Amino acid sequence: MQLGMVGLGRMGANIVRRLMRDGHECVVFDVNPDAVAALVAEGATGADSIEDLAAKLDAPRAVWLMVPAGITGQLVDQVAATLEAGDTIIDGGNSNYRDDVRRAAKLKPRGIHYVDAGTSGGVFGLERGYCLMIGGPDEAFTRLEPIFRTIAPGEGTIERTPGRTGDYAPEELGYLHCGPSGAGHFVKMVHNGIEYGIMAALAEGMNILENADAGTREAEHSAEVAPLEEPEFYQFTIDTPKVTELWRRGSVISSWLLDLTAAALQENPALDGLAGRVSDSGEGRWTVKAAVDIGVPAPVLAASLFERFASRDEDEYANQLLSAMRLQFGGHRELPAGDVLEAGTRKADA
Amino acid sequence: MQLGMVGLGRMGANIVRRLMRDGHECVVFDVNPDAVAALVAEGATGADSIEDLAAKLDAPRAVWLMVPAGITGQLVDQVAATLEAGDTIIDGGNSNYRDDVRRAAKLKPRGIHYVDAGTSGGVFGLERGYCLMIGGPDEAFTRLEPIFRTIAPGEGTIERTPGRTGDYAPEELGYLHCGPSGAGHFVKMVHNGIEYGIMAALAEGMNILENADAGTREAEHSAEVAPLEEPEFYQFTIDTPKVTELWRRGSVISSWLLDLTAAALQENPALDGLAGRVSDSGEGRWTVKAAVDIGVPAPVLAASLFERFASRDEDEYANQLLSAMRLQFGGHRELPAGDVLEAGTRKADA
Amino acid sequence: MQLGMVGLGRMGANIVRRLMRDGHECVVFDVNPDAVAALVAEGATGADSIEDLAAKLDAPRAVWLMVPAGITGQLVDQVAATLEAGDTIIDGGNSNYRDDVRRAAKLKPRGIHYVDAGTSGGVFGLERGYCLMIGGPDEAFTRLEPIFRTIAPGEGTIERTPGRTGDYAPEELGYLHCGPSGAGHFVKMVHNGIEYGIMAALAEGMNILENADAGTREAEHSAEVAPLEEPEFYQFTIDTPKVTELWRRGSVISSWLLDLTAAALQENPALDGLAGRVSDSGEGRWTVKAAVDIGVPAPVLAASLFERFASRDEDEYANQLLSAMRLQFGGHRELPAGDVLEAGTRKADA
Amino acid sequence: MQLGMVGLGRMGANIVRRLMRDGHECVVFDVNPDAVAALVAEGATGADSIEDLAAKLDAPRAVWLMVPAGITGQLVDQVAATLEAGDTIIDGGNSNYRDDVRRAAKLKPRGIHYVDAGTSGGVFGLERGYCLMIGGPDEAFTRLEPIFRTIAPGEGTIERTPGRTGDYAPEELGYLHCGPSGAGHFVKMVHNGIEYGIMAALAEGMNILENADAGTREAEHSAEVAPLEEPEFYQFTIDTPKVTELWRRGSVISSWLLDLTAAALQENPALDGLAGRVSDSGEGRWTVKAAVDIGVPAPVLAASLFERFASRDEDEYANQLLSAMRLQFGGHRELPAGDVLEAGTRKADA
Repeated sequence: MQLGMVGLGRMGANIVRRLMRDGHECVVFDVNPDAVAALVAEGATGADSIEDLAAKLDAPRAVWLMVPAGITGQLVDQVAATLEAGDTIIDGGNSNYRDDVRRAAKLKPRGIHYVDAGTSGGVFGLERGYCLMIGGPDEAFTRLEPIFRTIAPGEGTIERTPGRTGDYAPEELGYLHCGPSGAGHFVKMVHNGIEYGIMAALAEGMNILENADAGTREAEHSAEVAPLEEPEFYQFTIDTPKVTELWRRGSVISSWLLDLTAAALQENPALDGLAGRVSDSGEGRWTVKAAVDIGVPAPVLAASLFERFASRDEDEYANQLLSAMRLQFGGHRELPAGDVLEAGTRKADA
Repeated sequence: MQLGMVGLGRMGANIVRRLMRDGHECVVFDVNPDAVAALVAEGATGADSIEDLAAKLDAPRAVWLMVPAGITGQLVDQVAATLEAGDTIIDGGNSNYRDDVRRAAKLKPRGIHYVDAGTSGGVFGLERGYCLMIGGPDEAFTRLEPIFRTIAPGEGTIERTPGRTGDYAPEELGYLHCGPSGAGHFVKMVHNGIEYGIMAALAEGMNILENADAGTREAEHSAEVAPLEEPEFYQFTIDTPKVTELWRRGSVISSWLLDLTAAALQENPALDGLAGRVSDSGEGRWTVKAAVDIGVPAPVLAASLFERFASRDEDEYANQLLSAMRLQFGGHRELPAGDVLEAGTRKADA
Repeated sequence: MQLGMVGLGRMGANIVRRLMRDGHECVVFDVNPDAVAALVAEGATGADSIEDLAAKLDAPRAVWLMVPAGITGQLVDQVAATLEAGDTIIDGGNSNYRDDVRRAAKLKPRGIHYVDAGTSGGVFGLERGYCLMIGGPDEAFTRLEPIFRTIAPGEGTIERTPGRTGDYAPEELGYLHCGPSGAGHFVKMVHNGIEYGIMAALAEGMNILENADAGTREAEHSAEVAPLEEPEFYQFTIDTPKVTELWRRGSVISSWLLDLTAAALQENPALDGLAGRVSDSGEGRWTVKAAVDIGVPAPVLAASLFERFASRDEDEYANQLLSAMRLQFGGHRELPAGDVLEAGTRKADA
Repeated sequence: MQLGMVGLGRMGANIVRRLMRDGHECVVFDVNPDAVAALVAEGATGADSIEDLAAKLDAPRAVWLMVPAGITGQLVDQVAATLEAGDTIIDGGNSNYRDDVRRAAKLKPRGIHYVDAGTSGGVFGLERGYCLMIGGPDEAFTRLEPIFRTIAPGEGTIERTPGRTGDYAPEELGYLHCGPSGAGHFVKMVHNGIEYGIMAALAEGMNILENADAGTREAEHSAEVAPLEEPEFYQFTIDTPKVTELWRRGSVISSWLLDLTAAALQENPALDGLAGRVSDSGEGRWTVKAAVDIGVPAPVLAASLFERFASRDEDEYANQLLSAMRLQFGGHRELPAGDVLEAGTRKADA
């Protein structure tokens, strides 16, 4: 069937390619004419404006937006202005599901359907397919299902879950109608929240392995830092790149994120050039705020988010204050001087 | 080659089967004669005591112990008593790596090698193979490598990590010599610590999805519990079993633990009969203690462990005390009565 | 000076009493006529409606609302309808500071000042005074300063901070103009977030003391729960009520919350009748959400909030799911059966 | 009565002063003869060796050690060599309670009592007194009680806990016999664990206040960092030194640690010269390990410890690895370039 695509970054362009391969017809637009030209060369119909794109689609139209979350709002308005009752806007970006709820409510009186399609798959989606978490009215979902089925990975080579039989359900093909508008991005949000937690679990564990040789390093003689107890048990020099590769096969924690970790360490074993200032992009924050709103404990997901904040030194004032308090109550200096028997309480936290 | 196996529970027996399939010769012992008989029927040589097992092996002997961690210590002593210089004991169970370090040191004067083989793979290992994390002397590792290679999953169907070429390295076949005695169980310990974190991330996320309908439930009118703000954003009824199935394909968090979650929810969608008192079995604890020892932050791994403790109500005294404090400073009752305008500060935390 | 008070619950009534004692004149209203009558008997002027209250105040009027957060919004509207330019509404309840920002903006065109006064002090405020965190326009703060000074504790018996000299600053007397409308409740919100963290630190610590005798209890022989290592180090029966009393004098953690803990344990040493379902009342949630919004790590504050959620079993689905996963990958039952040597991997987390 | 003191650092010397003021007789030793001379000038009896100190004490002797934890072990041995049955060694330093248990067991056959006295009070102890948490045999505690009573703060000016009547109990005077050898340092360990949690709660909260102006700063246009939502709610410039001073009076979180925070910010409002690399000194670590051992959830105490580790960049490898993973799955660069509509998924976490 036919789809309009606005936003031809890597992900938008690859979705178009995946659709065209499967025989769908795509009308494409981007502010960058080169991006349009590239896909036209591959068989898409180009548009030179949003109005042009709408004009080139047959009613009922479907326009997929694949743009940064920050500009989705204005683009929804722009696109909606060119549409009519029965048409559908699909937001495939990383919008906050709350914006979906608001936008759907705003478009409803005009009879325009709003579908949010949380999309996971990263740079590998072109070949591997994109996992789609979809929110929106039944009618729109049903009409667009062929599009979703093409974009999704399909059954793939993954083993079928025991107990599932007969025809493959949509979720087994990699797309799911999760509920009304907003439900798709809600599920995608939680997906990314979980992703933060898994990434943090891997990173913390690898950090322990990387420091399993702590007992071999010269003891710190500082009176301010607790000395390593039982250094004899921390004498291991672990080859962390090899361990991540090992765990890919047969272990309980084998996972795509582990595959990526192994690939990263194969490519750059010493992690050269990485300062470790870890970005976050909204979904992890929204997940924690949602958990807080509905009273669900999420200590792991929250901790993984806060670690990212701290990696960017957002803990600086707190840490300075801790040092300042320690200085007050015990005369603890950050850089302690070293005399011994006299020191009495220097090591104490009072 | 030849291997003695002591402990024919599910995992021990399946390792024997995997070895025999690949042409290795196994001498087996268990306190349960039926377990021995079953494997004899499949081609193993049975032993009726540890002494008998040692007698039936050719020097240099290799005896694999696959028994609960609690009895490994005494069994190592028992087995060692039947061995001689050049022989090897392999502990394939879930021992604390510290015990490995101690045991290896104790056996060294007698010339007996001690190898610790952290083994992951669960009930699926017979077919899928077991991921092996191995510690011990080079000599013993090298001699026993054919055994490890058979037990391990091999290259399998998993895609090769980009950048790896030529012959498969051991870690690509699912076994790795991680370092001296103790290193294998150290890596296995951290592996399980990570596993706790990943499981918790999944469980917390699914709990948020399960409660995405919080806004549809009758508002709690209690003055003591914060009311749900913006209930209009929590109106989703998410089919959590379908979501876990969905994420198996194409999503960033696809993983074996997710496969198992989907399988669990397929089998028992309402989680009937599960009280949610989650056990833990040592490795998660040891991981957190190791992180604390070497000064590595592990908030996610620790939080996942503490959630398990709390699931078994180990937080009870703390919670009672919190209620008691609240009662003191604000007259907050656990079960508040309901008058309104008068209530003034009832809802306050002072 | 003169103040109108709406809401004569414990806190509202005690503020009125504190004001009258210091010579201020109070006009009071509550939906409960008995509450009005009680204060009239102590010297207040009673009002039988909000309109009546406004009529009995001289311009520029100041009306303090001390009502549950849930009804503050409608009451602000009601009161504002009776006021005119130059008058001031003070919200002394536990409103979300975001509501203050919105309400102030709404009242501004009419020339009505909106002041938010975060108020801490609990049941002890009548004697001890209330700590006041105030947001609002300079003009309103300055005019009402005599009121704030009376409500606040004053310099009290607390030792002066080294380096402070001369006249006492407002913050040394227990009230502070924190910034524009909303700033007062923002500071109060964070205050309560910190309170959650301190309470949790105390409760967790006391729980460790309460269980310092873990090594004396009969060992659990379960294959599913990690046995206590080194029980010889957990043989202490600590008298927790005495310890909290002890720490009140001379220790680094002496604090008002510790005083309350000691009082609670003196009154009810066994914490009889407390189920440990800990409520929360909004500020802790808002604090965590604010931290997430602005990218500030707050793992301790978040953990203390999530512990309260978990105390009310909001972790149930997550825990059931963890048990379900464990059942899948290792055949781990929640209530394990007990055979030994055969058990092989039963205790494992695979 | 008579006491020998070994270790005349600030805390040891001040304890001696406090004892002499109250009429006790002190024999003192330190490796630094100047420290000895200073106290001799104030009335103490000097000793020039441990043997000399023992010789100058009457049986049954009591020798208090106030030295860094790292050298306590050897000093206990040295002192014990000069003592005889019926004598007592008191360790007033910050030893791990496990060492107390071991040392007491070792000295028991010789009839020497071992008392561990966890001591809190910091630089203010000379005037304020020291809170004493005491472990050891009843006999030794009872004989030394006059010493403990003098060192402890006494009833002080702190209000009596409601319900307590009659003579003051030891815990009301600031010292407590907590149990057998080790119990004193166990309670002190948990005390310090709680202290870490309280300090972290304060520091995190103040960090939120310090960043309450996040909405006023120029928006970050990075595609990699989540933009601040609703900047209109983060427009407050909070005077954090004033806020800490404010909370000292009448607020629920008033506490000695808050007093110290206010003092620190009064002295150094901009926290100049503090890098925020926060030390830790053992007790926080031991507390978390004890909680893990006995299965008590302690997420707040653990988080406060891990924040300190992270403040010293012990999270570096983990963070680098997170950046490396992000680079793999989404092509996320740490320092993103800026084009817009094209960017498609750049902001995504895939």
